[in-house]
Amino acid sequence: MVADMRAIARKAKQAGRSLATLGSAEKSAVLRRMALALRAKSEDLKAQNAADLEKARADGLPAAMLDRLTLSDKVIQGMAQALEEIADLPDPVGTITNMVRRPNGLMVGRMRIPLGVVAMIYESRPNVTADAVGLCLKSGNAVILRGGSEAFHSNQAIVAVLKATLTESGMDPDIIGFIPVTDRAAIMEMLKLEDDIDLVIPRGGEGLIRTVVENSRIPVLKHYKGVCHIFVDRDADLDKAYSICHNAKVQRPGVCNAMETLLVDAAIAEQFLPEMVKRYQESGVEIRGCPRTRNIVPSITTAATEDDWYAEFLDLILAVKVVDTLEEAIDHIERYGSNHTEAIITENYSRSMRFLKEVDSSTVLVNASTRFSDGGQFGLGAEVGISTSKVHAYGPMGVEGLTIEKFVCFGDGQIRQ
Amino acid sequence: MVADMRAIARKAKQAGRSLATLGSAEKSAVLRRMALALRAKSEDLKAQNAADLEKARADGLPAAMLDRLTLSDKVIQGMAQALEEIADLPDPVGTITNMVRRPNGLMVGRMRIPLGVVAMIYESRPNVTADAVGLCLKSGNAVILRGGSEAFHSNQAIVAVLKATLTESGMDPDIIGFIPVTDRAAIMEMLKLEDDIDLVIPRGGEGLIRTVVENSRIPVLKHYKGVCHIFVDRDADLDKAYSICHNAKVQRPGVCNAMETLLVDAAIAEQFLPEMVKRYQESGVEIRGCPRTRNIVPSITTAATEDDWYAEFLDLILAVKVVDTLEEAIDHIERYGSNHTEAIITENYSRSMRFLKEVDSSTVLVNASTRFSDGGQFGLGAEVGISTSKVHAYGPMGVEGLTIEKFVCFGDGQIRQ
Repeated sequence: MVADMRAIARKAKQAGRSLATLGSAEKSAVLRRMALALRAKSEDLKAQNAADLEKARADGLPAAMLDRLTLSDKVIQGMAQALEEIADLPDPVGTITNMVRRPNGLMVGRMRIPLGVVAMIYESRPNVTADAVGLCLKSGNAVILRGGSEAFHSNQAIVAVLKATLTESGMDPDIIGFIPVTDRAAIMEMLKLEDDIDLVIPRGGEGLIRTVVENSRIPVLKHYKGVCHIFVDRDADLDKAYSICHNAKVQRPGVCNAMETLLVDAAIAEQFLPEMVKRYQESGVEIRGCPRTRNIVPSITTAATEDDWYAEFLDLILAVKVVDTLEEAIDHIERYGSNHTEAIITENYSRSMRFLKEVDSSTVLVNASTRFSDGGQFGLGAEVGISTSKVHAYGPMGVEGLTIEKFVCFGDGQIRQ
Repeated sequence: MVADMRAIARKAKQAGRSLATLGSAEKSAVLRRMALALRAKSEDLKAQNAADLEKARADGLPAAMLDRLTLSDKVIQGMAQALEEIADLPDPVGTITNMVRRPNGLMVGRMRIPLGVVAMIYESRPNVTADAVGLCLKSGNAVILRGGSEAFHSNQAIVAVLKATLTESGMDPDIIGFIPVTDRAAIMEMLKLEDDIDLVIPRGGEGLIRTVVENSRIPVLKHYKGVCHIFVDRDADLDKAYSICHNAKVQRPGVCNAMETLLVDAAIAEQFLPEMVKRYQESGVEIRGCPRTRNIVPSITTAATEDDWYAEFLDLILAVKVVDTLEEAIDHIERYGSNHTEAIITENYSRSMRFLKEVDSSTVLVNASTRFSDGGQFGLGAEVGISTSKVHAYGPMGVEGLTIEKFVCFGDGQIRQ
């Protein structure tokens, strides 16, 4: 396997060179052709997907996983549309910014370029295959794909369609590298190839991501989990607070930007919590409260444990804590949070600004739902992922996150004295 | 050691929180006080340095290393001045850019913030200790220092002066973490502390850097080496070419942005090479030539080996190759280069632009010496380092390289539909 992984990476790197300087119009045209091809080949894709589904059922995979694995007409249509939307995004590559004239006359600026080769390691959803190819191609990067073993045939079929489109467009099909095995040893080999791969993006469970971080010599962009908080300050507009806190927990509880812990200023807890909890309970949310919370709303029967403050429930469960001050809220977030997304609800100017400055998370909001922490919502277009480590990107990452700036200098004979 | 390393990192992280929102004026004032304190304590510093020098002499370290290790009055003065220059730099922290209004009225922008805790691992020069503290403090980061064992007493003494200044300024001295041992096991433990350390910057030999990359769970910023090329195109202004190629090799051969391989277009090689080689030989440069180079200038007696094309000589040695086309030059750079710095000498517009776009290095110059690839020369102020991996920063990295942008959102009650 060692040689194979290296060969895939080398070919991708080589193929990527031609892509790096390709014009935006050509890249968009290929993405549109890929969308057409996926629609045209939908019966083939569904046939291959059926093989994966059959095996998954035989292996007793849970219904939610079977659902994520299924390539329905709707999912295929979604993949095609996503490629068309990526085609419509602005192309960040080639832009030169910050061009300045130095005292010796040398013009120094920064040109945005692709990273080179991006490896995506992901789990069950086969539509990630098309998204990853689209985002990498748009940003001028070659891509190496390693999807979940349960979606192997589906991913292979999607890749075959996309590679054929590259070939038909006169482009090198090795721009897309596909790892033809599903054992973890292949990942381990790949993570050593720092000379040929520029970035690894693992998307999936915390276990997968930790394995990648521990073993990679290649830079990794990732977030482990989203333990998002909302702090309802004493000067909150309570109507906004009810609406935002309900939305952040209930609208889509299974995603990383949903709220997991609600922090309530003691000064308004008695006024705010009974109505808030009532609305949550009407929506089927299980509340796990600190002692003061349970004292104010005795109908809450579950006590929050230490583990609950760290938990990403991804479900209709919410931990609630009463705090005495803004400082206590910020300290709680610092201690238990995951640097993902936090919000404050307040009409107080100074405390809103303190929260915005002092909370260290990748997205900090005032008077808005944590659910907005998303590349699409922020206007970045399709989302590559969310980074919660403060290197390269922090927060939702769009196509620009797959690029970097190099220095370009226009001289007329300058030498260093 | 495990607990100790974690304690140092935890304390640095905690101390860094107060620093993250400190005003620019306060940070500059502390940096100036540190400069004064280093000057005031120069006799103490030299006494501690003498202990390191004595041991180094006893261990038989080479003269060049003893020179780098020495804290003379001039070096101490240089450290102090560097801190004052860092104090004068603009402070990137707190800037909000790209604030846009989304269709639902949510204002979304990006606020520049410190990374948090930066670990610096470096070798013999003790002045790096003060530089690292200055750059991290300016950018609002706590810093953990691990200098070379041969400079242990010198580094400890510098850190004591800087920590005392923090305390006298009413700041937390744990903003500077100093690893009180010099064994490699401590580094290995530190490299696992991804929850408390945000970035590792190793500066030193390739062996040290590879060890860090292979063992770190924390993101690493580094460059292994600088194998810099100049391509003299057929349409070069030969006077510029002589001057730039001489400067890039001879002005300071021991640094990473000096030229190591000269590529010459075959169309002008017979005209250009004899005079160029003559100038090099007058400056004591040893030439290692490809067969065509040696055919044109028979006085070159050394043949370039395959290893020479990969070599960072850091000395008055130059590999020279004749190539038939711009493409061959770019392919050579792609194969043997280190993504550091390359230049083209030409008066041809289209080929200058192709070289600028297609060469993948962190700095690409037209008609200027590779020696300009430097934070100070590019106007970034003091240099944190140079990155040759295309994540977070690419090329010379100033104070801004020790920061990242988070998303900040001003809402008025927005919820996600």
